[in-house]
Amino acid sequence: MLIVHHLGKSQSERIVWLCEELGIPCELKRYDRRADNRMAPPEYKALHPLGSAPVINDGDVVLAESGAVVEYIIAIYGNRRLTLAPDHPGFADYLYWFHFANGSFQPAIMRVFAMLRLDPAPDHPALKVAVQRREQMLGLIDARLASADYLAGEAFTAADIMTVFSVTTMRLFHDYSLAPYPNILAYLARIGARPCYQRAMQKGDPGMVPLLT
Amino acid sequence: MLIVHHLGKSQSERIVWLCEELGIPCELKRYDRRADNRMAPPEYKALHPLGSAPVINDGDVVLAESGAVVEYIIAIYGNRRLTLAPDHPGFADYLYWFHFANGSFQPAIMRVFAMLRLDPAPDHPALKVAVQRREQMLGLIDARLASADYLAGEAFTAADIMTVFSVTTMRLFHDYSLAPYPNILAYLARIGARPCYQRAMQKGDPGMVPLLT
Repeated sequence: MLIVHHLGKSQSERIVWLCEELGIPCELKRYDRRADNRMAPPEYKALHPLGSAPVINDGDVVLAESGAVVEYIIAIYGNRRLTLAPDHPGFADYLYWFHFANGSFQPAIMRVFAMLRLDPAPDHPALKVAVQRREQMLGLIDARLASADYLAGEAFTAADIMTVFSVTTMRLFHDYSLAPYPNILAYLARIGARPCYQRAMQKGDPGMVPLLT
Repeated sequence: MLIVHHLGKSQSERIVWLCEELGIPCELKRYDRRADNRMAPPEYKALHPLGSAPVINDGDVVLAESGAVVEYIIAIYGNRRLTLAPDHPGFADYLYWFHFANGSFQPAIMRVFAMLRLDPAPDHPALKVAVQRREQMLGLIDARLASADYLAGEAFTAADIMTVFSVTTMRLFHDYSLAPYPNILAYLARIGARPCYQRAMQKGDPGMVPLLT
């Protein structure tokens, strides 16, 4: 059986959620972050050379990296559900938003977060450029969600599963406001109403209130 | 016909190279970086809301984001060549390295690059953590290439096309040494010997010597 190693309040919530949406049975192993520095505990770091979440086991396969894990589970266990096929008019949109999540958006958030650790002056030009870039991406997501219920179009897909962490749980670590982005907030209300999302969050991070507002 | 918009010395070299490897005819439009700040020129920025490379046009489709563009071209024009199928023993490795490239590795490089713009003390703990993370990832790639000729295994795949930019052309902007990583250097010698890579680099950045050593 598929084993999903979930580090609390981390990108691996995507995998717990994906398994719920696909109705795939899996063994969930939970790990809490260290109390002193909010990092992964040694047991989690031992799962994979980089020590980052998510990590899954499937027989002999040990796999990390959100995009890879999502594609793997959908291909092996999900019969390609939650994706759009090449002949679907939304195929390019699906691919764009799926890859944008961890290829551009999450890195842009992390970049500001890392820069702030150097205690720069709040008006340092390089910091302002990085913040502006993050806001530009939030604006792009917001504009997309003005014309579609979900990122790939009418249908909820794995592109949404990739993206939601970065506008919800990530804000526990690096708080930025969604107030300027009403379409993202309306989208998060739709996401929060999904029974599979609710169940996944309760299983993965019991007691945590998802940051949907 | 597919139009590949190539910003000189940028991640879009992947797309020029992919089209060569697949033997796909495409119209290549080249754009030089601005002389004053090495940024993309306004004509490039106008192609897509984020203004980043790569961007392609395919009929009405305008698509950005390396991972998305590579998957799109391979699915629509490439008959899924340069990928491994779900029943291939290297499928998980293929997915891992394909997504690792822009999901973890390139962001780790960019994070150090961004932090350095704040002129931190060279021994600032947060900077050291970020540099260490980049080196850990280079070490992981090096270890992988000690046991396989290419990232997904014996066969050259799109995972290699995603990764090579970050250990070659990226070093024009943020120089880090590959000297501690002999397996990466041996790999780059294999890559540099590929006629398709040579042709792509000549077409995309004529006059630039690829940083393979």
